[in-house]
Amino acid sequence: MIPTPYLLFLGDAPDQLSAKVAQGIKDWRPENAVGQLRLPECGADAGLADMSLADAKAAGAETLVIGVANRGGVISQVWKKVLIEALEMGFDVASGLHNLLRNENDLVAAAHVAGQTLHDVRIPSVAYPIANGVKRSGKRCLAVGTDCSIGKMYTSLAVDAEMRNRGMKSTFRPTGQTGILITGGGVPLDAVVADFMAGAVEYLTPDNDDDHWDHIEGQGSLFHASYSGVTLALIHGGQPDALILAHEPTRTHMRGLPHYDLPSLETLRDTALLLARVVNPVCEVVGVSVNTQHLTEAEANKCLADIEARMGLPTVDPFRHGAGRLVDALVSL
Amino acid sequence: MIPTPYLLFLGDAPDQLSAKVAQGIKDWRPENAVGQLRLPECGADAGLADMSLADAKAAGAETLVIGVANRGGVISQVWKKVLIEALEMGFDVASGLHNLLRNENDLVAAAHVAGQTLHDVRIPSVAYPIANGVKRSGKRCLAVGTDCSIGKMYTSLAVDAEMRNRGMKSTFRPTGQTGILITGGGVPLDAVVADFMAGAVEYLTPDNDDDHWDHIEGQGSLFHASYSGVTLALIHGGQPDALILAHEPTRTHMRGLPHYDLPSLETLRDTALLLARVVNPVCEVVGVSVNTQHLTEAEANKCLADIEARMGLPTVDPFRHGAGRLVDALVSL
Repeated sequence: MIPTPYLLFLGDAPDQLSAKVAQGIKDWRPENAVGQLRLPECGADAGLADMSLADAKAAGAETLVIGVANRGGVISQVWKKVLIEALEMGFDVASGLHNLLRNENDLVAAAHVAGQTLHDVRIPSVAYPIANGVKRSGKRCLAVGTDCSIGKMYTSLAVDAEMRNRGMKSTFRPTGQTGILITGGGVPLDAVVADFMAGAVEYLTPDNDDDHWDHIEGQGSLFHASYSGVTLALIHGGQPDALILAHEPTRTHMRGLPHYDLPSLETLRDTALLLARVVNPVCEVVGVSVNTQHLTEAEANKCLADIEARMGLPTVDPFRHGAGRLVDALVSL
Repeated sequence: MIPTPYLLFLGDAPDQLSAKVAQGIKDWRPENAVGQLRLPECGADAGLADMSLADAKAAGAETLVIGVANRGGVISQVWKKVLIEALEMGFDVASGLHNLLRNENDLVAAAHVAGQTLHDVRIPSVAYPIANGVKRSGKRCLAVGTDCSIGKMYTSLAVDAEMRNRGMKSTFRPTGQTGILITGGGVPLDAVVADFMAGAVEYLTPDNDDDHWDHIEGQGSLFHASYSGVTLALIHGGQPDALILAHEPTRTHMRGLPHYDLPSLETLRDTALLLARVVNPVCEVVGVSVNTQHLTEAEANKCLADIEARMGLPTVDPFRHGAGRLVDALVSL
C-alpha cells in the first residue's frame, strides 16, 4: 500500500486531460489528497489547494504522487528537482509512468539516503499465486466492455461510491495504475506474468463478509485481440456474481484495431456470461453502463432508453445520472 | 534459437518419465540430438548412443540440453560438474528447469569465461510487441483442450510430422519449454507479461506462404480457471483457421482443480469457435484428438467411434493411430 494522504504533483501538465490521475484521486478519494503542487507553467488544476512541499508536510501528506503524464517518456530535470526535494523532506514518491522511478539513479540514491520508498505502481510488488478456483465468500461485481477504455473503471468506482453512500459494505479493487494510485493499492494486472494473472485477481479479492461487495476494475475486452486474455483471467480469477456491460455508442472500431468492429451488447452479454459461469454458475448480468460523453443530453437519453428496451436491463450513464439503478439491481440479485 | 545438434543430458534420472524432455526430442526431432549423456545411476534411456562430452563434441554437438527434471528443485553438484565441463569444452547449455541456470553463479562464471551461452527456455528473451490483430498470410492450426496437459502438444507435433511426411509446408510453433527444447526455439508463453501474450503469439506465427501451416502448441484450457487467459491469448494472437479439440476421456476433474468438472466436447467446440471467430471469421473445428493412454485398444476404439458419431468430426488418438485423418481434414478445409 502507498502511504496516504498524498500531495498531488501536477508538474508542468499542459492541460486538464494530462492530469487525469490527479483528477481521479480528487473525484473518488478526495480524503487521500491534502493538496496539489503545480509548477509555474502548469495548465491543469485538480481543484485542490495549491501547496508547497513544506505546506503539504505540515498538513500530514506522506506521499508525493505524480498525477500527470510526462512528455516524451522522460522524467525531466525540472521534475527531478521536486521529486528529490520531496524524498529529502520525508515523502515517499509514487508513479504510474511507463518509465520507472527505480530506473532513475538519482531518485534511487535520494530515496536510499532519506529512507523513503519509490512506488512504481505499474510493476507488481507481490509474488502472486497460481489461481486455485476455490469459491470465496462475499460478493463480486465486474464490468466487462465491448471495447477497452470504455468506462469500466469509472463504472466500478461509481457503483462502489453509491454503495458506500448507502452504508453498504463495498470495496473498489483496482487492477490498473490509475485505480491503484486512487486507492493506494491493487494489482497492476497487465504487468503480471501470464501464469499468475488469475491468481493475482484471487489475491486481490479474498474471502469477505457475505454482504460485502468487491467491485473489480475491468481491463481490456473479451473481443479485443490484444488484451482479451487479461479480461478472461479477470473473469475466472474474479468469480463475479454480477457483470455490468460497459459500452460507448459512438465508437466505430475497436480501440487501436481499425479493422475490428465492436461486438453487440447481446454478444458481449452471452459470451461473458458463458465464461463467467465456468467459475460461478449463478453469475448474472445486472445492467448496462453507457459512456455518453460524446452525445447531447437528448441523444444520451434516447440511447439509454433504446438499449434498456432492447436488453431488458437497467441502463445508465453513471457520470450523468449516477449509479443508483445499478446498485438497485445488485441489491436485488 | 538454441544451437543444434544437442547432446542430451539425462543425468541421474530415476526413471523414464523424468526424462520426458529427452524422449520428446528423440521422438520428434531425432536429427537434433547426436547422443545422450547418462550418469552411472541413471535409470532412463532415450534410446540414443551414449556419449561422453568429448564424443559428442567430435560428433558436432553444439549444446548440452538438460533433458531431465531435477529433484527437489536444486541443481546438484554432480550435475554442476558436467555442466561446467561442457561449457569449458565449448558447449552452450540449455534448460527448461524452474530454477534457472542464470541464477547459478558458478555456471554464469564458467559460461562467461568460455564465451558460451546459458539458455533458460522458461524465460522470454524477446521484447514482444502488443498484438495488432492484423490478418496474416498462411494457415494456422491450434489444439484446444477440455483441460490442461491433455495431449495438445503431442497432437500438434503429430499433425506437423504427418504434413511434412506428405511433403507439405508445415512448422510446429512451441509455446512451452518442452516444445522449445525439442525444436530449438519458440515462446515460453506462460512466462510472458500479460499485455504482451497475444503479441508474442503473433510474433511466433508471422506471415507465411499461403499453403504453409503453422501448428501452434496450445496451453491451458478456456475452462481451466488458473490458465484460461493464456489460452484466449493463444486463440486471439494465433488467428487459427482450424481448431482441433483435445480430450482425455478418463479424467474426472480439471487438473489441479478437484471441484471443477471438465466441459463437454460440444461446449468446448462452441466456446472456442465463438472466440476464434472474433479474429478469424472462417475458423472451423476440423477434428478431435483423444488421448486414450488409459484405455485398452478395444475401449479406445469404442471411445473414438462414439465421439466421432456424436460430434460428426474425424476423431483419432494420434499416438495409437497417427494423425493422418486430422491432416486429411485440414487439407480439405
